[in-house]
Amino acid sequence: MNSLGKNLRLTTFGESHGPAMGGIIDGFPPGFKIDFEFLQEEIDKRRPGSSALVTQRKEEDKPEFLSGITSGGITLGTPIGFIIRNKDQHSRDYADMSDIYRPNHADYTYDARYGLRDYRGGGRSSARETVNWVVAGALACQWLATKGIKIESVLTAAGQKDYNQLKEKLIQSPHSQISLQVPQEIQKTFEEEIMRAKREGDSVGGRVTCLINGLPAGLGNPIFSKFHASLAQAMMSINAAKAFEYGVGKEAPMFSGIQSADIFFTDTDKTIKTKTNFSGGIQGGITNGMPIFFDVTFKPTPTVLQELETVNSSGNKVTLKAKGRHDPCVAVRAVPVVKALAALVTMDFLIPSTEAYPVI
Amino acid sequence: MNSLGKNLRLTTFGESHGPAMGGIIDGFPPGFKIDFEFLQEEIDKRRPGSSALVTQRKEEDKPEFLSGITSGGITLGTPIGFIIRNKDQHSRDYADMSDIYRPNHADYTYDARYGLRDYRGGGRSSARETVNWVVAGALACQWLATKGIKIESVLTAAGQKDYNQLKEKLIQSPHSQISLQVPQEIQKTFEEEIMRAKREGDSVGGRVTCLINGLPAGLGNPIFSKFHASLAQAMMSINAAKAFEYGVGKEAPMFSGIQSADIFFTDTDKTIKTKTNFSGGIQGGITNGMPIFFDVTFKPTPTVLQELETVNSSGNKVTLKAKGRHDPCVAVRAVPVVKALAALVTMDFLIPSTEAYPVI
Amino acid sequence: MNSLGKNLRLTTFGESHGPAMGGIIDGFPPGFKIDFEFLQEEIDKRRPGSSALVTQRKEEDKPEFLSGITSGGITLGTPIGFIIRNKDQHSRDYADMSDIYRPNHADYTYDARYGLRDYRGGGRSSARETVNWVVAGALACQWLATKGIKIESVLTAAGQKDYNQLKEKLIQSPHSQISLQVPQEIQKTFEEEIMRAKREGDSVGGRVTCLINGLPAGLGNPIFSKFHASLAQAMMSINAAKAFEYGVGKEAPMFSGIQSADIFFTDTDKTIKTKTNFSGGIQGGITNGMPIFFDVTFKPTPTVLQELETVNSSGNKVTLKAKGRHDPCVAVRAVPVVKALAALVTMDFLIPSTEAYPVI
Amino acid sequence: MNSLGKNLRLTTFGESHGPAMGGIIDGFPPGFKIDFEFLQEEIDKRRPGSSALVTQRKEEDKPEFLSGITSGGITLGTPIGFIIRNKDQHSRDYADMSDIYRPNHADYTYDARYGLRDYRGGGRSSARETVNWVVAGALACQWLATKGIKIESVLTAAGQKDYNQLKEKLIQSPHSQISLQVPQEIQKTFEEEIMRAKREGDSVGGRVTCLINGLPAGLGNPIFSKFHASLAQAMMSINAAKAFEYGVGKEAPMFSGIQSADIFFTDTDKTIKTKTNFSGGIQGGITNGMPIFFDVTFKPTPTVLQELETVNSSGNKVTLKAKGRHDPCVAVRAVPVVKALAALVTMDFLIPSTEAYPVI
Repeated sequence: MNSLGKNLRLTTFGESHGPAMGGIIDGFPPGFKIDFEFLQEEIDKRRPGSSALVTQRKEEDKPEFLSGITSGGITLGTPIGFIIRNKDQHSRDYADMSDIYRPNHADYTYDARYGLRDYRGGGRSSARETVNWVVAGALACQWLATKGIKIESVLTAAGQKDYNQLKEKLIQSPHSQISLQVPQEIQKTFEEEIMRAKREGDSVGGRVTCLINGLPAGLGNPIFSKFHASLAQAMMSINAAKAFEYGVGKEAPMFSGIQSADIFFTDTDKTIKTKTNFSGGIQGGITNGMPIFFDVTFKPTPTVLQELETVNSSGNKVTLKAKGRHDPCVAVRAVPVVKALAALVTMDFLIPSTEAYPVI
Repeated sequence: MNSLGKNLRLTTFGESHGPAMGGIIDGFPPGFKIDFEFLQEEIDKRRPGSSALVTQRKEEDKPEFLSGITSGGITLGTPIGFIIRNKDQHSRDYADMSDIYRPNHADYTYDARYGLRDYRGGGRSSARETVNWVVAGALACQWLATKGIKIESVLTAAGQKDYNQLKEKLIQSPHSQISLQVPQEIQKTFEEEIMRAKREGDSVGGRVTCLINGLPAGLGNPIFSKFHASLAQAMMSINAAKAFEYGVGKEAPMFSGIQSADIFFTDTDKTIKTKTNFSGGIQGGITNGMPIFFDVTFKPTPTVLQELETVNSSGNKVTLKAKGRHDPCVAVRAVPVVKALAALVTMDFLIPSTEAYPVI
Repeated sequence: MNSLGKNLRLTTFGESHGPAMGGIIDGFPPGFKIDFEFLQEEIDKRRPGSSALVTQRKEEDKPEFLSGITSGGITLGTPIGFIIRNKDQHSRDYADMSDIYRPNHADYTYDARYGLRDYRGGGRSSARETVNWVVAGALACQWLATKGIKIESVLTAAGQKDYNQLKEKLIQSPHSQISLQVPQEIQKTFEEEIMRAKREGDSVGGRVTCLINGLPAGLGNPIFSKFHASLAQAMMSINAAKAFEYGVGKEAPMFSGIQSADIFFTDTDKTIKTKTNFSGGIQGGITNGMPIFFDVTFKPTPTVLQELETVNSSGNKVTLKAKGRHDPCVAVRAVPVVKALAALVTMDFLIPSTEAYPVI
Repeated sequence: MNSLGKNLRLTTFGESHGPAMGGIIDGFPPGFKIDFEFLQEEIDKRRPGSSALVTQRKEEDKPEFLSGITSGGITLGTPIGFIIRNKDQHSRDYADMSDIYRPNHADYTYDARYGLRDYRGGGRSSARETVNWVVAGALACQWLATKGIKIESVLTAAGQKDYNQLKEKLIQSPHSQISLQVPQEIQKTFEEEIMRAKREGDSVGGRVTCLINGLPAGLGNPIFSKFHASLAQAMMSINAAKAFEYGVGKEAPMFSGIQSADIFFTDTDKTIKTKTNFSGGIQGGITNGMPIFFDVTFKPTPTVLQELETVNSSGNKVTLKAKGRHDPCVAVRAVPVVKALAALVTMDFLIPSTEAYPVI
């Protein structure tokens, strides 16, 4: 099913080169004033063509809201339906490839699953789908902001360049006002990696780090709907995602139990906190009131502009040479997508305590 | 909710030191003959006290099946209810700790979430819960075996010792009859790491690698129920899990797009395969018929036998010195748990194609 | 949540006087050729203004399909998104009523639930929503037809006129080729009841009977997802529905256990059938291969064209006099809606046996 | 799936003549003190053998709680697992019938659905299952009582005797302190109907009316999870249920729109109420603060003690003569079952507003 969430549920549709993308946001609380400017800014961050680092496909992504909102921009509590028309569809670019299984793409598996597929631009498997998530996530971000919750995301690795120090800071200095700053010189190395790949017709992977500040303790369920398990499921839905980790993450075995014990203490404001944050703000699947942070690692864009050997749907060997626009590092455009999904998951956990039915 | 799965759904209950653990397996196909010996072997692998590496708590974990199975051991298609009595409960060991928030445990967060908790042995947050999963997973493994599907799991890191070569083999030689062998000399280094931690009253993290062989192409859903997203959600439910990755995983950015392209070819048996397996058997969220493999990284056991500073529920500073049994590396006991959950997720995806309603 | 179904799931949105209605059909099998003419006919049956019996609001309900279907009209297996623009919105007709709680409408309860509402034409509570269901139901009907399954629905009561004899025939003669014919003279009495109510500015209730032919035995789940329980939940979602009954229904106590025993026999084609059909084709929640039939009873249209006393949102007494278009018997327009929902529920139960994953 | 509910979810298991019945109650709020005496009384009301009107099978239904509750009887917020051992199983009574399809039972349909069945006492299709619901429902009733909500149910028809006046009172006098009293002389006619059927080895149907008092306005969702649609789905899950109706119900067409308009007024306590209650306390799927009432009609017990013609699993004609215990009117034992399910549904809708997460 093409749905995410239990209390706040996003259901989406759309093929990359079909008439439109779109979705239904169900469970959004009533009486909330939407800031459409902020919404458009979030969408624009994700948009291709916004810098040399990303594909030059030009999309004007203006969502049209069809329900759930008054003419004055106030939510009704009823489902919010929206669509985004697909434009600038160079479908002909793909005509030669209708029968070819591109390596590391979902062409072969979609054929195996469905018996047919929309080959134009990847159809349903295209990252174009993530525009739906960013629309919904932007609404969630606004709602969370009114509760004092702030979500940030940033690129922390590109190709073989990695800014490991950020995680160290998040763990060791959780009480400083850390935000997700990556020094400009590091950002420059990321850009160089990406531009080199682009020049070579190649692509590189990357990593996005996300930080959620302002969440209270007590969110999450103990067994199969742990806060981080829901995050993991959402993040692993992003195209090209290969790894999810939270807190100390994959480096956990580098530290012993004593070294990585997050010691509790009572802060001057009487709240209980931990001195370090190896836990990443979640213990036993439930938030502990500390900042939550996690990483998502992405593989290189499957599309490269060099010849690759592959097969067609008859199983015959063919040589593929992709043409046209090219996004050398999907992780760049995943930055706002990670944030959007984090907002949706967080709001899904928070809604029951703040909204819905009249309290008796 | 304490449930996992859609078509095959496991719902569980139980506190570590309550009367019993147990669960309901819903959606298991009818007419299947259960091998209770195999089942008990799987349970015994998870059991504490099975080697010096794990805690000495002695549990005789004999599940009692209460429904869904004929007296001859044939499934009825109706829900399979089972319980496992808790024994050997040294509840008094925990009495001093009823009010203390142990670092890296779920004591504080359970209190924040529920306002009270069963402090004995961690209550619902104890890894004791995983016995329920192993019972259900063992049934799933048997069923999968009849479809030619085999799941293996093995410890591939303990403390700072890591057997990276296994992933390399899984990626580069996917067509050899790889099974998850870890050389004995490597295993020995793992044991040394763990025993040293034990001697020091400390603990270490670790990693479990899992391999699913024999799955057909075409399983999984394209957007939010991608095959690997469901695996991620399940694996991140395991106590102490900090990272999930599949295929090349977190190392994805170490390779360029061209370097990590899994080239398609038609094998002598006319099936389409890939030469390498960076994808880990899943493309676009759907299986491609190649072996599926993934890693789960675990933090060190939170319980250590040295003094730790912490606070109690009043926020006052206290010093904690854990007593009693001690499991220095939870990853060891997670090996059969990872396998069990992998079996449940896989069977959940497979059921609709093989069972359920009469075909018209 | 605004969703119906598990394997075939319809999620909808739309306020009566908002920009558009619409929905997402998830889980529809791939490779199915859609007959758009049939689809439009089904939609037109539901449309207001199609006869003197129903409201004169003129809607041209042309769904626009935005995804999930190739340009050749073949389903892709991916979610089918569609919208239907709202036209002919006399929103000003409702301006006087923005603050008034109309009797038997959902004005007061929506305000209690959400704190605000779109008062124009009932907003989300309008029967306009059912156009979404008819779009999805028409696709389901086509798919079911290819499996030999046929669904019919008909008006069997209007006001105090009731055609009880139909149920008797369905029970006593289940093997004749019964279709849901209501004699013309009976239909005429229905029309008279409705037209009289219309003349008097009043409204009347009614009943719709639905028949599902061609279903195999074995569909349905034994406890909480009984075939008829899912039907009941769907049917009670229709605006103004007050009662659901299947088989002998509410008259069950008029017959003793012996009188209403559906005696099994083996037919000449070797299939097991029952001589009578008090059961309505479902026993223990599971279909038995006999025709399925059920009734849904509707209350009179809440809107009447006479003065009614009521209160406004401040609780002050006001007198309401509805103006404009008027649908004196909602049951008339519910006939295609009942059929559409029956098709969706039936297809939801059937899908697992016929579609989805590749069979190993 | 054998689950009911979203926020409060009951999942059950058990065959009539298997080792035990049982279930898991998930989502029950923490910190609630259970009254085990009340619980047992509710269970005993459902128990067979409690009067001459019902079957003489003697069950001592003592639930054993295995989790989710402290030794002091306080809920933990974690899943509540419970089992009830099956005793007094005259399985041999059923041995002759292992191959016979009993009319109006689920024998044939279970075989069609599953390919095999536990024939002893109906297996999973037995009304024995409802003991699980009464256990869970009794907990829900206690919790609802602390919110001022009271649920009652009563037998209002047996065989051809019907106490229609009760519904009339519920509609016309919703502000008197109505409780569900059936006059003793009417009760006597019910008993006579049942005892006559018993003497004749026959059985009769009946009807149960249920009243929910004390619910606030604003509960329920507008489209597919209408309050009454969830009630309908739950009630139609009860064995032998054939019809569900709420408010004026199936008699709705007997009244015109004007006759059945529930006129709003502001009561002396400033709350908005309706003068009559044709709506049954629900408008547009959402509660309006008035009493909620509904009816469930049951068919006669399928088991009768006279010879019936039928077929066996080979399709051969056989004559069936049931022996042993006999419950001539299932509706009698359904009275506490209707109440239990009503409590579960109501609590499911109420939980989000009162419990769960910490409010920010």
